This record gives sequence, structure tokens and C-alpha cells, in this order.
Amino acid sequence: MHAMKELWNYFNEIKTIQYIDELLGWDQSVNMPKGSIEGRAEQSKFIRELIHKKIKSDKVGELIKKAEKLNNLSQTEKALIREAKREHEHAKKIPDELVGEITKTRALGFIEWEKAREKSDFSRFKPFLQKMVELRIEFAEKLDTGPTLYSTLIDLFEPGATYNWVAKIFSQMKSSIVKIVKKLNNSSDKPNQSILKKYYDPEKQWQLSNEIIKKLNFDLNIGRQDKSTHPFTSSLSSVDTRITTRIWEDFLPACIFGTIHECGHALYEMGFDEEIHGTFLADGCSMGIHESQSRLWENIVGRSREFWVYWYPIFKKTFPENLKDYSMEEFYRSLNVVQPSFIRVEADEITYGLHIILRFELEKMMIEENLQIDELPEIWNTKFEELFGIVPPNDKEGVLQDPHWIGGYGYFPTYALGNLYGAQIYHKVLKDNPKLPQDYEKGEFSNLLSCLKENVYQYGKIYRASELIKKITGEDLNPDYFIKYAENKFYPIYGF
Amino acid sequence: MHAMKELWNYFNEIKTIQYIDELLGWDQSVNMPKGSIEGRAEQSKFIRELIHKKIKSDKVGELIKKAEKLNNLSQTEKALIREAKREHEHAKKIPDELVGEITKTRALGFIEWEKAREKSDFSRFKPFLQKMVELRIEFAEKLDTGPTLYSTLIDLFEPGATYNWVAKIFSQMKSSIVKIVKKLNNSSDKPNQSILKKYYDPEKQWQLSNEIIKKLNFDLNIGRQDKSTHPFTSSLSSVDTRITTRIWEDFLPACIFGTIHECGHALYEMGFDEEIHGTFLADGCSMGIHESQSRLWENIVGRSREFWVYWYPIFKKTFPENLKDYSMEEFYRSLNVVQPSFIRVEADEITYGLHIILRFELEKMMIEENLQIDELPEIWNTKFEELFGIVPPNDKEGVLQDPHWIGGYGYFPTYALGNLYGAQIYHKVLKDNPKLPQDYEKGEFSNLLSCLKENVYQYGKIYRASELIKKITGEDLNPDYFIKYAENKFYPIYGF
Repeated sequence: MHAMKELWNYFNEIKTIQYIDELLGWDQSVNMPKGSIEGRAEQSKFIRELIHKKIKSDKVGELIKKAEKLNNLSQTEKALIREAKREHEHAKKIPDELVGEITKTRALGFIEWEKAREKSDFSRFKPFLQKMVELRIEFAEKLDTGPTLYSTLIDLFEPGATYNWVAKIFSQMKSSIVKIVKKLNNSSDKPNQSILKKYYDPEKQWQLSNEIIKKLNFDLNIGRQDKSTHPFTSSLSSVDTRITTRIWEDFLPACIFGTIHECGHALYEMGFDEEIHGTFLADGCSMGIHESQSRLWENIVGRSREFWVYWYPIFKKTFPENLKDYSMEEFYRSLNVVQPSFIRVEADEITYGLHIILRFELEKMMIEENLQIDELPEIWNTKFEELFGIVPPNDKEGVLQDPHWIGGYGYFPTYALGNLYGAQIYHKVLKDNPKLPQDYEKGEFSNLLSCLKENVYQYGKIYRASELIKKITGEDLNPDYFIKYAENKFYPIYGF
Repeated sequence: MHAMKELWNYFNEIKTIQYIDELLGWDQSVNMPKGSIEGRAEQSKFIRELIHKKIKSDKVGELIKKAEKLNNLSQTEKALIREAKREHEHAKKIPDELVGEITKTRALGFIEWEKAREKSDFSRFKPFLQKMVELRIEFAEKLDTGPTLYSTLIDLFEPGATYNWVAKIFSQMKSSIVKIVKKLNNSSDKPNQSILKKYYDPEKQWQLSNEIIKKLNFDLNIGRQDKSTHPFTSSLSSVDTRITTRIWEDFLPACIFGTIHECGHALYEMGFDEEIHGTFLADGCSMGIHESQSRLWENIVGRSREFWVYWYPIFKKTFPENLKDYSMEEFYRSLNVVQPSFIRVEADEITYGLHIILRFELEKMMIEENLQIDELPEIWNTKFEELFGIVPPNDKEGVLQDPHWIGGYGYFPTYALGNLYGAQIYHKVLKDNPKLPQDYEKGEFSNLLSCLKENVYQYGKIYRASELIKKITGEDLNPDYFIKYAENKFYPIYGF
């Protein structure tokens, strides 16, 4: 068989197995009975080892070498070779024992993290975190793909990115955010969230969230929405993308914006070109680009005034008691309160970046600067105060709030990159289609979806993020677009 | 490694993959979006081929040979070797192409069956049925494990059973059933189903069905109930057994007894001894024994007077409008109407056996006696009239009602064997624990469950059905227990 065809087939099969892994995970979060974890763990272990074995095999190494020598390769073929090679080399470099050790530590540590957070007791989480830092340092040393250890880890989620590149971008972003937050804080006409902090019937929230995804063109013929503790998006095949949401009775935005956020991820996954369906390229370009789409839909669209021109009357009808005394404008402003807060997942779209910068700096210290894990809570609090001007009252609302560090390091930065990519892409799309926001006022989002599909979604993993952003916008990632977007949006909301 | 330990590990892994296959199927029936079939088909194909390859491998053949030579094997070890060998030899004998052809014909034929049934048009189903009969004959010829072709196919579902053995048992059963039905038909005080054929709120039916399974000790910590078009039970691991039910607005028994039926299957699956959890022996002894447990709970327990002493007041409270004018006795009698009817799945527990005998005789003719598929609808109707005294008005209510024949032959007999095994096992359990029915009046079923677990469930696939029934009751399968049960129950209901 032609080497290229063989390579496609080989990695299509791996993709099939990865989809099965996704189903195992989706079912575990959404449906699986509480007492069934042991059986499921066995199944996930088997499937992951199978994927690992297949990616690592010498056969695929030879296949890649053969394919690399071919002439006249298309962009897509080159991309497959690039991704196949990347995964194969990663797998070859990391000993199976280390993979096993990381998996085990993460599983045990996650359980301990849950308890530690519950009790706000960092000491019980500490040994696991300590262990994971050591394992990930060893992992990065073995992998050795980036200029520094932490860069190597960042590259796992944002291929091609380095610590220096991210640090430079974050530094620009940080000073602008601090400036904006300061100015907003001086406003004499601040919006507040009291409208949103009432009892909103969960069943009605659920129904609205389903109406919203329909309007956003989430395709229920090849997708579904469910409820879970933590919202997430999962593709179980190229024609099966599922999202989840969570509902808080006393805070409306959790469900609504959680839903729109995951819907953004899902629209991306549903928008890959058919040519790459079921292939190894049917995946997001990078975590940052993926997050750019969830945040674009959630924040730039979902928290826009135009969006609520259409939806507010529907919400008002659904929750007449709660909303009858408020104008659309008041509701819109309440959705866009900017203020320092302790918990990342509850942060507004502006201060969010500061939460990420904090984690980015701490990750660097843990991986490269021998930060003593003992000191982590204190350093967290000190840095938090520097960035936000407030100090977490306890570790539950501080260093213990996120589970990510029991898995790995380098993922957090992609969240903030997402905001930046999103603003830059949206700026270009809006320049080409200045009337788009008028659509939102009519509950019409298919033109925006088409633009994003054409510019971003269709390509899946064909381009690297740096190539894609340049291809779409003609320049490299530039935080100015996000800053301009933020100023243009929030200064008026705060009466400037 | 010790050969026996290696064999356990090898087949535990196969079991793990089979559980994954179960999840793929469960999700497809319960959750999967309509448009996602193509991706799922790819995944199921991959997983099934993986199972097939593993069972067929020469490595496992050698492993079995080594294990067979070991001394002092326990009953459980012997059972594993027996089952491993059986599956291995089956897989070796059947060419992969034939497996593929059967899978393809079944998939295409099933779609065509649905349309054919809908339109009551046998001609469009015929070519697929014809093809499947040919494939299954070839399959039986290649397998060649039984004294005749049809015996070989029966053995797939009821290991050790032959056509002659089943025919002899069914012949005894048939004459007794015909006698009972005739007598009941002459009653001047027949119960009727009008109470059950009213509008019963689907949501309330659903809630009651959930209350019932809780009382029956279905363990919701390692199981769940959902809705699906066709009710089924699926074990996704040794600690994850799920059932489904369907709800008919205008006929109460569909949901209630569907639920109890599947719950019976599930209690079996939940009751395997921990020693065999996750192993190849964590499975029902045979389809007949499995069905005996679903029918025991559904009919012997669920349609008993004692059961409704507890549940009728609850039902009356839930559906006061529908039930206020009826006594418990009237309701109980309405659940136990015996009368000829066209559709197997709606048949009462007595005439049910005749539906199976019809299919058993036709399968024999198709597989061994060159029955022309053209003539099947007519022969169905003729035989139906002989057995029931009525003629199906169309093929939808005749030969087209079941999808089984687009899959295979030899499965149907196990349904009726289930009734017989169930009655014989229950007779023994009741003899040892004569006060059990008093429990049901209090909504208490744990003593019955313990008896069944001790006698049946714990052993999983360790014993063959013929061994198990002898071990429990001291004799071979004997239809007299079912006949006696039927007479003792139904003659009084019909005023004799």
C-alpha cells in the first residue's frame, strides 16, 4: 500500500480508539453509577495503553520515515506526518513506567485534592503535588523538545509556544489589564450582579440553555447536552459532539454562559471539513485556539448587548418575578461586572487574565526554579495580593481551587491565550462582516458560524496556531486586539 | 507465568474489551444522537474485530493446551478452560469473511426489516432473510459442534442443548399449555384488561418503575435505569449493570413488567460472586437460565397476588382516577389474563410458550428442511392457526413482528426454556422457604434475592445449565413444575 494511505489508515484507527476513550470518559462524568469506578478504570487503562502502544510502535516510525520521503505532499498530508511524528516521538521518549506513575499519582492525587479543597487543608494535598512536580520535571527532561523545561510542557498544549513567547505576550496583557481594572474601579456608576443572584428555577434554566444552543446552530442531530458537575465538551466521533452544563439555583450566569462556552468548543468540533473527519487531524489546532472559540461565543457574543436584545425578552418572560423591574441595559451591564475575585472560573473576562498570569508564574517557579511546595500557599497569596489587591481568606479560595496541577503544568496559559486569539480573530471577522452584530439582535448566528468555520473550524489540526492566526489575520498573535476590545466594551458600561 | 494465571489475565482482558463493546451498544440505544451512527459503527467494528482476533489467536490456543494439562484444577478453573476453549474453537472454525458477511447482512437486513414491518411487506425483507438463512447454515456447517445443524445453532445460546432435547421438552409443554388454555377459555368468569388500558401518566409510570426496582434491591450504586425503544439489560462491568424500560401511555403493564423483567436480568448480573468479577465467567450460565431469572421476577413474583398486596395501594394512590373503582383482586386478575394473541412480546406467561414453539418449528424447517422463504408467511399463518385458533390479519402481526431472524436462529427456544427453568428453580426455593410470599406482601424481596443469589447468581458461568439445574433441584429440567405452577395459579383466577 502507498505509505501515505497506510499512515492515514493507521492513525484513523488510533483516532477511532481515542473516540472510544472519549466515550468512556463522557459516560463516567455524565451517567456512570457512583460505585462503578473500578470497572471503568480497568477499561480506560486498557484503551489508553492500546493507544500508547500503537503510537509508539516501530512500525509507525518506519511508516512516517517512508511518508516523509514522498514528493508533492499536500498541506493536509504534511500535517498528518507532522502530528504523527510528534506523537510518535513523544511516546518513544517517555518510558511506560513514567506514564504509569503519572497516571497513578494523578488518580490518587485528584481524590486527595477534592478532600483537601473541601477542608481547605493544603497539607494533605502537598505530597501528591510535590510528587507530580517531580514527575513532570522528569517528563520534560526526557521529552526535551523546548528551549527550557517549562517551555517543553507548554508545547504539549500549545504546539510551538515557548515560555519566553508567552511571557512577553502576558507582560503586555498584564499592564493593560491592570490599567483597565483600575480605571473601572474608579467609576462612580458601576454595574452590579444583584439581578443575577436570585433564585432561578433550575428546570427553566435548563430549558433556556437548550433553546440557546439550538439558536447558536449546535447540531442536535450529531450532538447533545447533559448536566455534569464540571461542564465539558467531548467528541465521541466526527459526528458526535456532546456538551455538558451545570446549573446553580442562585446564580444565573453559571448555566447560561457555561452552556455558551461549551457550545463554542462544540461548534469548532462540529465544523471540521469532511475531508478530515475521523482522521488524526479532526481536532483543535491548539488548546489556545480551541479556547478562543469557546470564549468568543461566551464573552464576545454571549455577553454582548446585541445578544441580549434578542434573548432578554425571552428571559424576562421566563423569569418575570426576577426580571420585571429591570431594563435590558441593566441586565446587560450586570453580566459585565469587572472586579477582582478569588475564584478563576467565576472571574470576568478582564481580570481572568490575571488569574492565569499568577498560575503561569508559579508554574515556571515550580518546574524550573525549585519552588518549595511548602511555600506555595504563601507565595500564591502574596502574588495574588500584588495582582488583585486582595488576599484569599483560605486555601480553598486560593491555591486549592483548581485540580489542574495534579495533572500537569503548561495548560493554564492557553486559557488566556484563548481570550487573545479570540479577540484578534473576531476583529478580523467583524472587519470583513461589519453587520454581524445586527444578526445577534435577531437571534441569528449562522453568518458568524460560517465565518468562523471558513477561517478556523474547517482546518482542524492542519495548521499550527502561529500559522493559522497569521493566515486569518495577516499578523502574529497580538494582545492589542483584546485590549482594544476590552476598552471599547467596558469603558461605556462603566460610564466612561 | 503459571499457565492458569496467564489464561485468567488473557480472558480478563477480553472481558474488559467486551464491556467496552457493551458501553458502545448501551450508549447507542440510550443516548447517541441520531446522526452519529457512522462514527459509532466504526468503533464497534474495531472493538469486535479486536475481541475476535484475541480469542482466535494461536497464543491462546497454546495457553489452553498448557492449562488443560495441569492437575488439581478447581471447578472455576475448569470452567474458564471450558469457556475459553469453546470460544477459541468457534473463532478458529469460522472464517473472518463469513463473520463479516453475517455482520453486514444483519446490519442492512435490520434496517430493511424495520421498513418491511412498518409496511407489513414481507417481500422487501425476504432477500435478506434468505441470505441470512444461507449464511447461518454455512456457519453451522463450519462450526459442526452439534448432532444436527440446528442443534449446533441452539448450542450457541444454550450450551449443551440439542434439537431433540428441546423438542421433547416442548412437546410435553405444548400439550399441557393447550389443555390449560382450553380450560381457561371455557370459564364463565374471565378477567379482562380494561383496567390496564387507560391513560396512565408516563412520568408517574416512570417514577413507579424506579420505586419498584429499588424495592427489588436493584443496586443503584452500581446500576441505573433509562428509557429506550426496546427494553434491555447491559453490564458495562462487574459493578455497572444498566436496564432500560419503555412506557406506553395507554397500557400500564408495558413499563411495569418490562422494568421487573429487566431488573431480574440485572439482579442476576449483580449477583456474581466477587471471585469471578471481571473474569470471562462473569456472565449468565446460559440464555435460558438468564431468561429464567427475568421471568421469575416478572411473572412468578411480579404477577403474584402477594406482590400486589403491597404495591396496589401505592398504584391506587398514584392513579386514583383510573383505579378508584377497582379492588386489588380485580387488578391482580387483570394482570393475569390468558388468551391467544398475535404478538409474542405482549403474550401472557402461558400462551407465550406456543409463540416459541411456532418459531422453534419454523427455525428447524429453515435450517434443516430447506423451507422456501417465499412460503414462510403462509406457513407461519397456518401453524399459528393450529396453535392458537386465530390467523394473523397481516405479516406485521405475523412473521414480521420480531427482528431475531435477521441475526440468527436458535435463540428463541431459550425464552421458553426460561419459563421452565424459572418455575423449577422457584419451586425448590419455595419448598426450602415457604414463607417467602409473605415477604412480598410487605414489599420485602431480599430473602428471595439471597436464595437466588446462593443457588444461581453467584456461580455465573461456572456450571452448564444442565449441571446447575441438577445441583439446585436434584433433577434435570422438567416442564411439570411450570405446568403445575400454571394450573395452581390460573385455575383459581379463572374461577375453577
